[in-house]
Amino acid sequence: MHNQFSKEYLVVAQNASGRNMNVPLYRFKGSQPGPKVYIQSSIHGAEVQGNVVIYHLIQILKTQQIFGEITLVPNCNPVGTNIKAGEYTLGRFDPVNGTNWNRGYYFDSELVEQFALTVADDEPLAAMKDRFRQAIKQKIDERLNSTWGLGLAQQLNLKLQQLAFDADIVIDIHNGPVSTRHIYVPEYAKASASLFNIPHVILIPNKFAGALDEATFCHWWTLQKLLACKTGVDVDLNVEAFTLEMGSQEVIDFDEGKYDASSILSYLNAKHCLVEADYQPKNMQRVAVTLENYKILYTRQGGIVEYMAKPGSYLKEGQPLAKILNVDELENERATETITAPCDLIPILHFPSASVLSGTQLYKCFTHFFLLTEAT
Amino acid sequence: MHNQFSKEYLVVAQNASGRNMNVPLYRFKGSQPGPKVYIQSSIHGAEVQGNVVIYHLIQILKTQQIFGEITLVPNCNPVGTNIKAGEYTLGRFDPVNGTNWNRGYYFDSELVEQFALTVADDEPLAAMKDRFRQAIKQKIDERLNSTWGLGLAQQLNLKLQQLAFDADIVIDIHNGPVSTRHIYVPEYAKASASLFNIPHVILIPNKFAGALDEATFCHWWTLQKLLACKTGVDVDLNVEAFTLEMGSQEVIDFDEGKYDASSILSYLNAKHCLVEADYQPKNMQRVAVTLENYKILYTRQGGIVEYMAKPGSYLKEGQPLAKILNVDELENERATETITAPCDLIPILHFPSASVLSGTQLYKCFTHFFLLTEAT
Amino acid sequence: MHNQFSKEYLVVAQNASGRNMNVPLYRFKGSQPGPKVYIQSSIHGAEVQGNVVIYHLIQILKTQQIFGEITLVPNCNPVGTNIKAGEYTLGRFDPVNGTNWNRGYYFDSELVEQFALTVADDEPLAAMKDRFRQAIKQKIDERLNSTWGLGLAQQLNLKLQQLAFDADIVIDIHNGPVSTRHIYVPEYAKASASLFNIPHVILIPNKFAGALDEATFCHWWTLQKLLACKTGVDVDLNVEAFTLEMGSQEVIDFDEGKYDASSILSYLNAKHCLVEADYQPKNMQRVAVTLENYKILYTRQGGIVEYMAKPGSYLKEGQPLAKILNVDELENERATETITAPCDLIPILHFPSASVLSGTQLYKCFTHFFLLTEAT
Amino acid sequence: MHNQFSKEYLVVAQNASGRNMNVPLYRFKGSQPGPKVYIQSSIHGAEVQGNVVIYHLIQILKTQQIFGEITLVPNCNPVGTNIKAGEYTLGRFDPVNGTNWNRGYYFDSELVEQFALTVADDEPLAAMKDRFRQAIKQKIDERLNSTWGLGLAQQLNLKLQQLAFDADIVIDIHNGPVSTRHIYVPEYAKASASLFNIPHVILIPNKFAGALDEATFCHWWTLQKLLACKTGVDVDLNVEAFTLEMGSQEVIDFDEGKYDASSILSYLNAKHCLVEADYQPKNMQRVAVTLENYKILYTRQGGIVEYMAKPGSYLKEGQPLAKILNVDELENERATETITAPCDLIPILHFPSASVLSGTQLYKCFTHFFLLTEAT
Repeated sequence: MHNQFSKEYLVVAQNASGRNMNVPLYRFKGSQPGPKVYIQSSIHGAEVQGNVVIYHLIQILKTQQIFGEITLVPNCNPVGTNIKAGEYTLGRFDPVNGTNWNRGYYFDSELVEQFALTVADDEPLAAMKDRFRQAIKQKIDERLNSTWGLGLAQQLNLKLQQLAFDADIVIDIHNGPVSTRHIYVPEYAKASASLFNIPHVILIPNKFAGALDEATFCHWWTLQKLLACKTGVDVDLNVEAFTLEMGSQEVIDFDEGKYDASSILSYLNAKHCLVEADYQPKNMQRVAVTLENYKILYTRQGGIVEYMAKPGSYLKEGQPLAKILNVDELENERATETITAPCDLIPILHFPSASVLSGTQLYKCFTHFFLLTEAT
Repeated sequence: MHNQFSKEYLVVAQNASGRNMNVPLYRFKGSQPGPKVYIQSSIHGAEVQGNVVIYHLIQILKTQQIFGEITLVPNCNPVGTNIKAGEYTLGRFDPVNGTNWNRGYYFDSELVEQFALTVADDEPLAAMKDRFRQAIKQKIDERLNSTWGLGLAQQLNLKLQQLAFDADIVIDIHNGPVSTRHIYVPEYAKASASLFNIPHVILIPNKFAGALDEATFCHWWTLQKLLACKTGVDVDLNVEAFTLEMGSQEVIDFDEGKYDASSILSYLNAKHCLVEADYQPKNMQRVAVTLENYKILYTRQGGIVEYMAKPGSYLKEGQPLAKILNVDELENERATETITAPCDLIPILHFPSASVLSGTQLYKCFTHFFLLTEAT
Repeated sequence: MHNQFSKEYLVVAQNASGRNMNVPLYRFKGSQPGPKVYIQSSIHGAEVQGNVVIYHLIQILKTQQIFGEITLVPNCNPVGTNIKAGEYTLGRFDPVNGTNWNRGYYFDSELVEQFALTVADDEPLAAMKDRFRQAIKQKIDERLNSTWGLGLAQQLNLKLQQLAFDADIVIDIHNGPVSTRHIYVPEYAKASASLFNIPHVILIPNKFAGALDEATFCHWWTLQKLLACKTGVDVDLNVEAFTLEMGSQEVIDFDEGKYDASSILSYLNAKHCLVEADYQPKNMQRVAVTLENYKILYTRQGGIVEYMAKPGSYLKEGQPLAKILNVDELENERATETITAPCDLIPILHFPSASVLSGTQLYKCFTHFFLLTEAT
Repeated sequence: MHNQFSKEYLVVAQNASGRNMNVPLYRFKGSQPGPKVYIQSSIHGAEVQGNVVIYHLIQILKTQQIFGEITLVPNCNPVGTNIKAGEYTLGRFDPVNGTNWNRGYYFDSELVEQFALTVADDEPLAAMKDRFRQAIKQKIDERLNSTWGLGLAQQLNLKLQQLAFDADIVIDIHNGPVSTRHIYVPEYAKASASLFNIPHVILIPNKFAGALDEATFCHWWTLQKLLACKTGVDVDLNVEAFTLEMGSQEVIDFDEGKYDASSILSYLNAKHCLVEADYQPKNMQRVAVTLENYKILYTRQGGIVEYMAKPGSYLKEGQPLAKILNVDELENERATETITAPCDLIPILHFPSASVLSGTQLYKCFTHFFLLTEAT
């Protein structure tokens, strides 16, 4: 008894030659019911390692039986992937207008509030969830088909969200610039953070800033709170969404991708998506911060930079993060300047180029972090 | 008795060579007291015509006596002006991260609320306004000097806002892509719309979206409403701010610049900034819309486009806006497709390139517009 | 008895998603023998008007009977067409390495010399031409299939040249930046210049600089000269190739395209490609220069520019071409600087942006031009 | 007795704000006569490590006495350094027209031939060299001041060449994309290759392709050959020029820079530029190729790539260089494709992005290489 496999293509845009740009959908259906999973990668075009992770997942799912259904969407932004500016990929935003490809998903708290009013006390959970999915997806559909149209990034995002909103588990695979592995986890799903093999965890509140994980969990979290408020009884709607950051952009590595596929399977196994599987989370140290303690350090000066602190290392306040060379002062003591850690921190990622202007995101850092799990 | 003239430079950024990038400040002080005026141009680097307008204003202010003080800041974004991508200027956003150069100004409604509480019923208006300016500017200063730093666009914006927030009149000169003249006017200053020689007026509510005009008037408008609420008496804080769109980007024209300088002087004259001057608003038709009726028409398809409707013309519903060529279907009836006006409208601007992807801002249009002044 | 029509697609590249990028080939075959014609457009991605010209040609060829065969290749560079950098199309060069899309065609004078040695005195012209075509195309084929591969632009160019080298007439349709109509004509085909309705003609020598027209006529011209040398008898190999510049880039206009289609048909009619057609060259003034008198005027300074001289107009030495604004000197006499014509000239095109660095191609100009045909 | 130190700035361009862009010149003059040395870095804006090398050289030259004169020019392309496209630096070419910043130097074999005719048999070598320098520099000056002007890249190149042509030793410091150390050495100066601590050497012929090293040695080499031809006696004009490639672009490393400074000082010491110094070339293996055996491997397909072969390693024919993922075929055997070495080779550098189109320079490789020096 095998999984049922299918592949299809979703048209998400048309290029300037008037040609369709499409996204491949790989789908595995188990022979037994279970959760629906949606996994996409490369919404930012230079963040390509997720495609390798999905490659490994597909190799495994060809033989590993599943419950429910898993949809995998690699290369989910065929526009962004194909914007070269010099040798690198300018994949974070639309080159026409600067719109970040990961900020145009849909969330409407008002709609959730209206929906909450329609939920009868005795409505079965599954039926209610189904109705909720239809309501949101219909709204997205209306937006996609409005008279005046929608911007390219938003069209792309909404077409993907139409697919993703059917799922119980949504995983959006990204990469940082030069980065160590980290994961964004909604606070309510904090327990799930330890099911992945990812050492750095950012806990995020119920606040929408445009990304797919938020566009997923904000809807369900808000509904959950409203229903709890209304009925006085806590209800678990059991939908989770994560953004996984799998190392650095502009690089792929098949071995690392295998590790990350295994990490995702550990989580999925714990969530009862796999039939008789053996994937277990690693015994490892995991460190967490709340979102407001995940800090960006901006440069005050322009120049060329050596990044002295490695992503994932621990720094004490005052230890050197970076050293800047000033090409106009090479003969005197202003030739170099050292930027130090403003407090104890873990640098998670740094800017990928040695050349920076003032106001550049030099490092993103965990501050006031705490231990989530300890290696034993 | 002449105006006093001075010129200085404000450092707003450092480039990747570690060199200062600065902005010229031209300042005229009248011998008699009066309003403070702040005029800047080219925050979007490709929108250069405002520099010509400021050139003409300076020529006139060399002999035209003024009340108060006028500060003119051409080329206010030396970073954006200098980003070439191909032959054109990629001046709308930071090429590193996509941040729009005109969205990082500061507004904090909470701070205004706190300030309103400190206003005594008998505090003189001038003193109160001065205190308010200090409070906002101090907050901006704190942000500019925070430990973790700020992004480049925000640094640039806040340094300019420090200057602009001193003024009673703020004018931010922009250009559209391929565009006819239009102006953004806060609803409370609607009467001032007719003091400029600009035929198309967009009336905007008290809502902050990051631009300089909003960052100016939202502070004062909010304060005004809070004080009215508190005292029950309407008070006019007498600060106005506008975004002027002076035709198309990537083009300068000295004659058109003279027209626009004259238009601004008409407004300033009406506001008692000029001593014994003769500048009067033209007798002309002015048409207005509220912001929610200023609509963007996005393409559904990619292809190459002839823009059939001229900015500033009137179109009936169903009349052709654009014709798209489909290079893959040249021999059959799908070779061209016509995009028509979804309702009666005035196209104000259109996309500047013939090549469009799906989801491109093809036209921005006035819909449900109304007459503000009639030519007699 | 109709033309036979077919459409196919040629794969010229793969994008970063691993997907084929292809070029449409529209082909009309007459029922009677005659010349082979090859017409392509948009090798530079922002130069899109040629696609409209080809659209009109196709409309006409659906009913106009032809001799021989006409192949039309619009949108012949699907890579270049789709590189947006800001709102405009960065279509002149590969964004990865700066390679001009129109400089990678193949010409090898040595191969022509070797071939000339193989031509027997009594070899029939048609057979010899056919053998020559095979020899060149085989060489191109070898390059396309070499072990170490070829760069993207060169691959694209050679695949198109494989098609074009079969033709007796090759027309490559371009646009200038902001430009009036002009045409590049090999000196030996000077008589053909007056068969098009194009007022400005550049006569080019037998020198290869990488473009398609040169890659065509240099081969035939060199062979012709070698054969003449060898036999002492002039032979007309009767192959012509032209680059047509149809106005400005980033703009399409269906009416102008009709004019240019008609102009091309006049030429084709004179060359016996059309059956009983009525297309005649216009009675109009045509002005010509030799290539070395087609001059580029570079800026010495950076700044923003008003282009005062219209492409196609006549200027006397000393008349103003452009006026540059210096934003740092607005209050004094260095505020503006005027650039004047260094000699009598016709500006043919100018830079498309108002913002220029030092060393920018401000204008390209006809100097020492002469009358080719006069309007009577 | 110290070296005399001076610093000045050379204006090489004006930006679109009309502001000068300048290059710092650091100059050390020894108290005793000796060779003139010219060292520049970062003509390609993303290749910044050379600035660090120059920083270390300056630290040492503050105390190390020299013979003659050493001019150091870091950040020699302030335009290229400051072109950001996304997070990276688009520093290889002018973003306006695609011109490589390292291809606009001047070489004119005709001028050398004319000069050779003027050399009297008894003209002292020093005087003749001086006259030659003046002749070339005057020609460059004429070009810089011609009526119609020059392109930006060429202006920049010629202004630097004016300085460099005074020198007996010219070193142009570059970086590869992802690269191991290598050096370009003119064949006639092959012996000097072993004076640097650089393991990979490319021997280049007397052929001008636009770069600074060629623009230097082609002039002297050609003159040398002409004089030898004329007099029948070999003469050593004793001018050498090199392009050094110091590892990867977009990265700086102060420790590596120290190593490279030391390597350059070893060469300079051997050339009698240093007074009583201790810098000796390392005992190490050096491998060389002739230029025609330094091969570029282009991709045939687009996709995302894992670079399996490390720059500087040895590969046998058939060993894997790279593995390409095909996102549309993840479930079948076409999911990945391996690109293998077409012959025995040393990969020297590879493309810096995981995303490639067809026709991308995947690797540059030494083939048919040979041992220059062996580590003992």
